[in-house]
Amino acid sequence: MIFLTRRATFSASHYYWNESWTAEKNQQVFGRCANRNGHGHNYTVEVTVAGEPDPVTGFVVDLKWLKDVIEHEVLAAYDHRHLNLEVPEFAASKLMPTTENIAISAWKRLEPAIALAGGAKLTRVRIYETPEIFAEFRGEA
Amino acid sequence: MIFLTRRATFSASHYYWNESWTAEKNQQVFGRCANRNGHGHNYTVEVTVAGEPDPVTGFVVDLKWLKDVIEHEVLAAYDHRHLNLEVPEFAASKLMPTTENIAISAWKRLEPAIALAGGAKLTRVRIYETPEIFAEFRGEA
Amino acid sequence: MIFLTRRATFSASHYYWNESWTAEKNQQVFGRCANRNGHGHNYTVEVTVAGEPDPVTGFVVDLKWLKDVIEHEVLAAYDHRHLNLEVPEFAASKLMPTTENIAISAWKRLEPAIALAGGAKLTRVRIYETPEIFAEFRGEA
Amino acid sequence: MIFLTRRATFSASHYYWNESWTAEKNQQVFGRCANRNGHGHNYTVEVTVAGEPDPVTGFVVDLKWLKDVIEHEVLAAYDHRHLNLEVPEFAASKLMPTTENIAISAWKRLEPAIALAGGAKLTRVRIYETPEIFAEFRGEA
Amino acid sequence: MIFLTRRATFSASHYYWNESWTAEKNQQVFGRCANRNGHGHNYTVEVTVAGEPDPVTGFVVDLKWLKDVIEHEVLAAYDHRHLNLEVPEFAASKLMPTTENIAISAWKRLEPAIALAGGAKLTRVRIYETPEIFAEFRGEA
Amino acid sequence: MIFLTRRATFSASHYYWNESWTAEKNQQVFGRCANRNGHGHNYTVEVTVAGEPDPVTGFVVDLKWLKDVIEHEVLAAYDHRHLNLEVPEFAASKLMPTTENIAISAWKRLEPAIALAGGAKLTRVRIYETPEIFAEFRGEA
Repeated sequence: MIFLTRRATFSASHYYWNESWTAEKNQQVFGRCANRNGHGHNYTVEVTVAGEPDPVTGFVVDLKWLKDVIEHEVLAAYDHRHLNLEVPEFAASKLMPTTENIAISAWKRLEPAIALAGGAKLTRVRIYETPEIFAEFRGEA
Repeated sequence: MIFLTRRATFSASHYYWNESWTAEKNQQVFGRCANRNGHGHNYTVEVTVAGEPDPVTGFVVDLKWLKDVIEHEVLAAYDHRHLNLEVPEFAASKLMPTTENIAISAWKRLEPAIALAGGAKLTRVRIYETPEIFAEFRGEA
Repeated sequence: MIFLTRRATFSASHYYWNESWTAEKNQQVFGRCANRNGHGHNYTVEVTVAGEPDPVTGFVVDLKWLKDVIEHEVLAAYDHRHLNLEVPEFAASKLMPTTENIAISAWKRLEPAIALAGGAKLTRVRIYETPEIFAEFRGEA
Repeated sequence: MIFLTRRATFSASHYYWNESWTAEKNQQVFGRCANRNGHGHNYTVEVTVAGEPDPVTGFVVDLKWLKDVIEHEVLAAYDHRHLNLEVPEFAASKLMPTTENIAISAWKRLEPAIALAGGAKLTRVRIYETPEIFAEFRGEA
Repeated sequence: MIFLTRRATFSASHYYWNESWTAEKNQQVFGRCANRNGHGHNYTVEVTVAGEPDPVTGFVVDLKWLKDVIEHEVLAAYDHRHLNLEVPEFAASKLMPTTENIAISAWKRLEPAIALAGGAKLTRVRIYETPEIFAEFRGEA
Repeated sequence: MIFLTRRATFSASHYYWNESWTAEKNQQVFGRCANRNGHGHNYTVEVTVAGEPDPVTGFVVDLKWLKDVIEHEVLAAYDHRHLNLEVPEFAASKLMPTTENIAISAWKRLEPAIALAGGAKLTRVRIYETPEIFAEFRGEA
């Protein structure tokens, strides 16, 4: 069993704001992130799949294919976007686009496409908001 | 003569949009950056001052003071802000918040405060928009 | 379940020396680290907590709070200090301030403060002595 | 239990080519990597061992010893080499020198030397082909 | 005047070998790099242009255009190639593909394309062979 | 003319203290660095030489030789040392081991050895105290 990882980056805006709270409470809980004009990050997404290397190709999965999956499933929706306003899982609900929730959302976007291919299993999605902060989801409750 | 550099980071949103152009022309010139919802980056600002180390302290400038200058003059205005909407040099004019113009603007913010202190001269401001793209201004026409 | 990580850095001195050994034996076992004048590193501490994102805030824990915990529990004691001479867990015993033991000691400092808050569980402390060497403690015997 | 990791780097050439396939099929499956002249990478190998810190030295293993093991077992064979032509596990078989198979091969080279020393257990070998792509083997089927 | 820089990466093989020398002399001068099977690196190319930001777009040059220039002029020729065998400036002459000569060769490839565009001037090409070694050419004799 | 750079790292301790000042004044000027027990850093030294690539070897200088020069002239004196107590230029004088003065001192150590070889000229020494702080000396008053 090999764990194979590919990284990609995207640049996006977000803010943290709860409509049912006062401005003061939003400020108190979310601090500088409560600015409705938004601020942004260069995010890094790290996708790990697990499986056996194919005896002929030596590949767990084709890394070019994995790159395309990350681009189609995650970057096409998140890159150069405002997460709160343009990305369905955040725009259409009260789900806050925190690093934690972006990790879970990216997993939900990637998992079906990787499962469909049949070759390897998604085991980990890690999102870096900055080089100092990252959240990891392993598909476990 | 020693060139002493300190780095800091800030997270901000921006977009590229020219009001006097059609949406098509904005899209054509600015591509994905023409999204009015904004997108964002973790910017790094690198500030270089030049001077002689003080014979007693060994300092060109006190790095704690330089950190405070960067925080007061640049980060207080740019960090967790939308550059187009909230930062005066971009919001009050048609100046586009490109990496190039952010470097010049940060220089204009830093230079008077460093000149006032009298000890060393600002010689370079570098802004990284991503680890792959950076602009540098040396105060030269 | 999300694993959320925050990094911080501290600069400290240390040496490796066993009082009950001869200088020759110390030199033989600890090599260049046996210099009693001490040498130093820019350490990075990486703290991981696990939990469910809060349905309202989207936070596993408030990252500002986690930053404060790392600063109060670890950096206040270790940063700009000589680990052998000034940090109680090493100064008051024969415990050697190796990367391994720093990871365990940082865990012991962080775990009660994080447990007290009740929201998430400390699951991992990683200490980088250099970018090439790191030790990780997961609270397991 | 502490997980202690040491990184090292090596520069090597490789290509992907299956002798029993046509040139077209090799091109289709392996893309730019099917160039028989070879291309190369600065690989990073990350070796993790697990064990209890020695109560006297504070070491899980002596990091100088671990560095030597990595150099003797992995770097001496891989560094400044063409993996397909000069490294026995790839040259003498049809095993493709993918990141996945390099991770498994490095494990097989390291594990006996680390087991022989008796102090700690090899738990993970990670190979970075570039900063964006890495494969990890944990000795598990 | 702003100095605007863009980075890109390519993976290539090379060796150092002088046909008019004995194997012994090649070994003595070039050490491990004298292996005719080749070894490889993940190279980084850093391209700097200088000019005034356009008053309307805020661009010294369009970074998407600069990326394309780097890809067409440098990466298309160097990436996933064996420099000694496949890249004309090295294959057709005795020019050794050292980091120094790659920097000069990349400059010669980039300079006409950038000059032709008329907007900004190429001022610096830097090539990293590893994160520890880099060569810079500024177009000066 | 090519500018060729090689990086190396060393780990050292230091403190800032002026014997002719009171403890209060030392604390006020040097802050946390005034701790006489010392604290430490992983320093990076970046050495740049300039010259023409040799037409036969393609080398400005042999990088193995440059590595040896850095090791003999700088690392042998600074690595795993307490700069204030063990490194002559700081221990035998009141010269403060600031990043600025370490850059000048490293230049004085490197320049004669590089000049003696005759092939290329030292043009720049850069010292990183942390990834956020660095000082550069170019041999200019």
